[in-house]
Amino acid sequence: MMPDYKHIGRSVPRVDSRARATGEVKFSGDLIFPRMLVGKVLRSPHAHARILNIDTSRAERLRGVKTVVTGRDTAGVKWGVFPYTRDMQMLQIDKARYIGDEVAAVAAVDEDTALEALRLIDVDYEILPGVFTIDEALADDAPLVHEDYPGNRNVEVNIDVGDVDEALEKSHLVRTDTFIAPEDDYFMGEPYAVVVRPDTDGNLEIWCPNAGPHMKSKPLSNVLRLPLNKVKVRKVAIGGAFGGRSEISPADFICSLMALKSGRPVKIVYTREENTTCVRQGHGMVTKHITGMDRDGRVTARSSISYLDGGAYSSTGPIAVSVPFLCHEQTYRLDNARFHGVRVYTNKPVRGMIRIHGRSFAAGVDMQLDMMAEELGLDPVEVRLINARRPGEYTATKSYVGSCGLTECVEKTVERSDFKKKHGKLPPYRGIGLGMNSVQTGFPLGIRGGSQAIIKFNEDGGVTIISGVVDNGQGNDNMLVQIAAEELGLEMTDIELITADTEVTPNDPGSYSMVTTFAGGNAVRLAAADAKRQIFEVAAEKLEANPADLIAADRKVFVKGSPDRGLPLAKVLRMALIQGRPILGQGSFSPKVDHRREWVSNPQGQLSEAFSFGATVCEVDVDPETGLVEVLDVWAAQDCGFAINPMVVEGQFEGSVAMGGQGGMLTEFHSWNDGRCLNTTQLEYKVPLAVDMPPIDPIIVETIDPSGPYGAKEAGMSVAMSAAQAYACAIANAIGCWIKEFPITPDKIVEAIEHKKRGDFDSNG
Amino acid sequence: MMPDYKHIGRSVPRVDSRARATGEVKFSGDLIFPRMLVGKVLRSPHAHARILNIDTSRAERLRGVKTVVTGRDTAGVKWGVFPYTRDMQMLQIDKARYIGDEVAAVAAVDEDTALEALRLIDVDYEILPGVFTIDEALADDAPLVHEDYPGNRNVEVNIDVGDVDEALEKSHLVRTDTFIAPEDDYFMGEPYAVVVRPDTDGNLEIWCPNAGPHMKSKPLSNVLRLPLNKVKVRKVAIGGAFGGRSEISPADFICSLMALKSGRPVKIVYTREENTTCVRQGHGMVTKHITGMDRDGRVTARSSISYLDGGAYSSTGPIAVSVPFLCHEQTYRLDNARFHGVRVYTNKPVRGMIRIHGRSFAAGVDMQLDMMAEELGLDPVEVRLINARRPGEYTATKSYVGSCGLTECVEKTVERSDFKKKHGKLPPYRGIGLGMNSVQTGFPLGIRGGSQAIIKFNEDGGVTIISGVVDNGQGNDNMLVQIAAEELGLEMTDIELITADTEVTPNDPGSYSMVTTFAGGNAVRLAAADAKRQIFEVAAEKLEANPADLIAADRKVFVKGSPDRGLPLAKVLRMALIQGRPILGQGSFSPKVDHRREWVSNPQGQLSEAFSFGATVCEVDVDPETGLVEVLDVWAAQDCGFAINPMVVEGQFEGSVAMGGQGGMLTEFHSWNDGRCLNTTQLEYKVPLAVDMPPIDPIIVETIDPSGPYGAKEAGMSVAMSAAQAYACAIANAIGCWIKEFPITPDKIVEAIEHKKRGDFDSNG
Repeated sequence: MMPDYKHIGRSVPRVDSRARATGEVKFSGDLIFPRMLVGKVLRSPHAHARILNIDTSRAERLRGVKTVVTGRDTAGVKWGVFPYTRDMQMLQIDKARYIGDEVAAVAAVDEDTALEALRLIDVDYEILPGVFTIDEALADDAPLVHEDYPGNRNVEVNIDVGDVDEALEKSHLVRTDTFIAPEDDYFMGEPYAVVVRPDTDGNLEIWCPNAGPHMKSKPLSNVLRLPLNKVKVRKVAIGGAFGGRSEISPADFICSLMALKSGRPVKIVYTREENTTCVRQGHGMVTKHITGMDRDGRVTARSSISYLDGGAYSSTGPIAVSVPFLCHEQTYRLDNARFHGVRVYTNKPVRGMIRIHGRSFAAGVDMQLDMMAEELGLDPVEVRLINARRPGEYTATKSYVGSCGLTECVEKTVERSDFKKKHGKLPPYRGIGLGMNSVQTGFPLGIRGGSQAIIKFNEDGGVTIISGVVDNGQGNDNMLVQIAAEELGLEMTDIELITADTEVTPNDPGSYSMVTTFAGGNAVRLAAADAKRQIFEVAAEKLEANPADLIAADRKVFVKGSPDRGLPLAKVLRMALIQGRPILGQGSFSPKVDHRREWVSNPQGQLSEAFSFGATVCEVDVDPETGLVEVLDVWAAQDCGFAINPMVVEGQFEGSVAMGGQGGMLTEFHSWNDGRCLNTTQLEYKVPLAVDMPPIDPIIVETIDPSGPYGAKEAGMSVAMSAAQAYACAIANAIGCWIKEFPITPDKIVEAIEHKKRGDFDSNG
Repeated sequence: MMPDYKHIGRSVPRVDSRARATGEVKFSGDLIFPRMLVGKVLRSPHAHARILNIDTSRAERLRGVKTVVTGRDTAGVKWGVFPYTRDMQMLQIDKARYIGDEVAAVAAVDEDTALEALRLIDVDYEILPGVFTIDEALADDAPLVHEDYPGNRNVEVNIDVGDVDEALEKSHLVRTDTFIAPEDDYFMGEPYAVVVRPDTDGNLEIWCPNAGPHMKSKPLSNVLRLPLNKVKVRKVAIGGAFGGRSEISPADFICSLMALKSGRPVKIVYTREENTTCVRQGHGMVTKHITGMDRDGRVTARSSISYLDGGAYSSTGPIAVSVPFLCHEQTYRLDNARFHGVRVYTNKPVRGMIRIHGRSFAAGVDMQLDMMAEELGLDPVEVRLINARRPGEYTATKSYVGSCGLTECVEKTVERSDFKKKHGKLPPYRGIGLGMNSVQTGFPLGIRGGSQAIIKFNEDGGVTIISGVVDNGQGNDNMLVQIAAEELGLEMTDIELITADTEVTPNDPGSYSMVTTFAGGNAVRLAAADAKRQIFEVAAEKLEANPADLIAADRKVFVKGSPDRGLPLAKVLRMALIQGRPILGQGSFSPKVDHRREWVSNPQGQLSEAFSFGATVCEVDVDPETGLVEVLDVWAAQDCGFAINPMVVEGQFEGSVAMGGQGGMLTEFHSWNDGRCLNTTQLEYKVPLAVDMPPIDPIIVETIDPSGPYGAKEAGMSVAMSAAQAYACAIANAIGCWIKEFPITPDKIVEAIEHKKRGDFDSNG
């Protein structure tokens, strides 16, 4: 039976809703400081060019220009995710490697002056031939993006578990399919903006969108060669992250540099074009799956090869290489598995992390399972279930999976959608598809560490949570407040938050890799429990009771079962204060993982303390004339462990279907011309709007993970990924052929239908 | 032998010096926020008047006026120090009780508009007769300032220890003298200013000079009827406190009210006149000492009666009533003591706390001792020493005195000044005098509680101290940094401070009642020790050592005696982070006092955990023609326990001589005309400037108090008070007669010399 919670497990409006709804909330771009300068970045117009000379003298002489910086003003520290390739300077000196690469920057008293100054910077380029696709990059005589990376191969990951060759050989059926997906774009509502305010002691205050302030301060401290104490990343409202905002932007560095050089606050706000081309996005990816299956539909082995288009620098990309594989080895039982991932440099914008990892990998796996089920005459749901992860198992790379509600997710979506009645029995051009996925709640955090929280009390019973957790859209602030209110027996309005400030708040790994509720939520829960223990000690003396017999509820501390034998919390706090033992709670939580596990060189061992699982079913109607897909209904289920705020979890599901399915599989892609992005704006890159969205039936599955706070794990991402798979399978089911290049746009559908009518559609392509 | 400290006990430049020296530091009045309004207060032009009507309609209609408030806009909560008289509303409704009393206020887009709006507020007053002196207030038919306080008697304190009457009767010599002193003014360099910024959720951010942000937030929360979580008093630079800035100002309340009403930031900056008349200052005071002495100069008994002119409201004045007595019962052994203190209401500005408590009391005691020594033919130094407090004794009101270096202070000042060779042997109109005093390091703090500190680490070895301690001029920030650096084996530059913010920092009693080094310093020391314990645990595992054998120094942790068996602190911090046990230190300290002790109703029991002691010798040359006093030299000694930063301690001594002696005894006083202050500005109220100051020989005496951090107690205030006494005694010694009305201005000196020449000077007056 579930405990009787007062705050958690209930749908409550988010604590940050009011400021966002009224428009009062301040994002980085909204900040204004006296004497603040406008910063602008001069970017390479060439995809690949040697920088022969940069002459800033004319710009420097322009009235109103306060500082001009180039790579020569920097310590020349190269950035990249430790311990992988560090290949990027924040301002280029020798070469520009993509259209948009940072070459110089100015800070001036207003935007017009800054833009005029950019025009006055003279850069001599020697244009070099570039590589713009994975194939071009891997060609024998390809120009090198980085001279020290032969073959333009940035990072390669090899995983080989069991005996894949033997298992494939013994399989009843083996299929080989190649799936292709272009780059993903986050298209956050908030343009990237950074404000840096210096003081004369060389301290910097920094406001920018982030996935964890400590994730910004640490690399900035490194590239700026400043101690962490001087790099103070402050809390600010953030308009979306989606896996991005997780590493420093050159803008952070450039803005800091110009603030230090000018001694004045500097603000850089990206244009929409810069947001598209100069902010890290998801990788384009080509994946070949060779999958073996036995007669009953059980997968015997899978060998996957993925090539990722990483763009000009490594960014956080090395980590991204194996994530699609890992998500799938969590989702599907796989004793014999091989993965070869190669991240390739091209002269295109830089690719990093995104919330839907590897459309070509994920959708590929499920489409291929459907194809093989069809070939074997098996039910696609049964094929999914026979291969589905169950609790108490290990993944191929030796992660123990504790709580796991994947089967329940599949069963519930299938049942609610009437999948079995519909599949194969729908009218022509109507289809239904199922996808399933899994993500970890955090991974070996290395130097990112765990989360630590402090709980501080005012003597009137008010509480302040001090936590490094950042809320970049998913409701983390609310989650922390709900947990503290529950633990301490207070109302949510009694609780105030200080979060996401590297100066004030203790360490937190960032709202990234799905770890926040698990680590940050647990840290606050532990801090509250620590405070409660102290409160009970003080109260027990006065109440002449055993601390173990006390409970906290309704802003009071009282003896269990005797609500009249109690004291108001405020009174206990005052007693503690006067007695010289003021209450201060602290807690820290770090997921139990195998710290020897490593992304590239040693992908073995416990990846995460817990995993969430999701399944999505999608029903579509395709217009064979126009190729337009109407999504009729989506059923999205996730085992999130426990839903601390079901309303927020459901919101996460909705956003996940939008990102993973509706946008990711139907409309979103970039067009290129030799490294130049042709659709940089919201008019051209088709992110689904609220009006585009289908009805979504959110199904929360709760397995009460033993380590999560109240059993909570992660919410949303398993839906985002499984939605992509469901959409792809549903369209295939509707049109009767398999489109393996994503997104599945109307032109491809019309072409496939025509090919199919002509009988020349090659489903093995 | 003293331990070998690296940081403490050394004179180092203060961490806040640079910003102050460059002018970069921001005081409250310097703050600017977008859309900020200018607030101005309408004050009563009458010393005592009934408010018949306030018509704000014309002001409200003026373009640019955003809000107008009167007492009708308030919850009507009366303010006063708990548990004493709560007699003051922050905006008056029924009566105005002094010239300057708050009647209404406006916030407008600029100062001109705000001032014009004040002129447009129509107030109908019925002028009432007022009382302007203690005598007038106590007269039988005196008008009442507060109708519920008959006889205008605000608070009365009675202390009666031993058998005073019998002891006086048995005394060899009894003297009765009455000493008079006018009000003291702080004349801080910084004018009072407050800025309040509201948000739409009703949270207020407040910047104002303060003696502890929690001392502001708590009463503001009370009068505004807002939870403490919504009243966020922020850190800001403070230009002097001197015992003031310790309670809320009506300006804080009015500014908050107007910010809430207008929804915009509001700033109020006091004019210099408002600073003088509308900021609480020290009490005017009349004291009669009846002192008995035996043949050897030993004081047998003292009965003192003090009347304090409290002005129109009680403020923190009730506490001030007995402080001069308490300081002296700490300084001088006194088995038979009686004190009757009466705080009287008058129609004058409000009086509260100040750093030199009771010139008339303090200087009176020492002058009278000199008179009696002279009458008995005893050496004044010996009379001081025979009566001086010694360690291990109890005060009359039952406070145990542990460490006490009073005798050493007296002996050192006497020796360095050649007092004995000079006293009675100097040329005419040259004199030398000795004063001694004592103050407590904190007192029963009640709801103010103790101090609590958090120490947080960055993984590169940087440290952040989170403490509620405010630095309002005395070097507290530096003190905290020195202590943390010492404990943790770091450099001071590794340490950063977050202090004095009620939202972020835990409780602290405020930089007030001399408690900061003792409580706040100890809390930081304990927090650092707590962190060090955790650090040693982590390091000990790696070093295969016993944590007890480790020491922290030079940014490393190593085995005692084996500096090669060590780890950089940064490395240990990273190990702790990765191991999921990040380091966070906390400490709290509350002085051990008798919490049953109470200022008015029960002045018995342990007042403070430690007491500091000081002695000052002053040598003067008086010009008998002009009455001008030239101070030739000052020797100031204090037992401050341990000097954490000797340079700062010496600076405190210098400021103390300026405030207590040079200004307090020679030049500073206010002139009045029926409750109207005639000298409100710095041109007219003569605060000594640096060029006016005599040479000062600062003598630090260290008794290493067992409870103070490294033995430290309080620094400066015992000098401030003993300097007043030394100046008074020195002038008397120079001119050969006793001027008992302070300050001892040239006119009084010339008059006394003439009286003496005529033989009609009444030294018993």
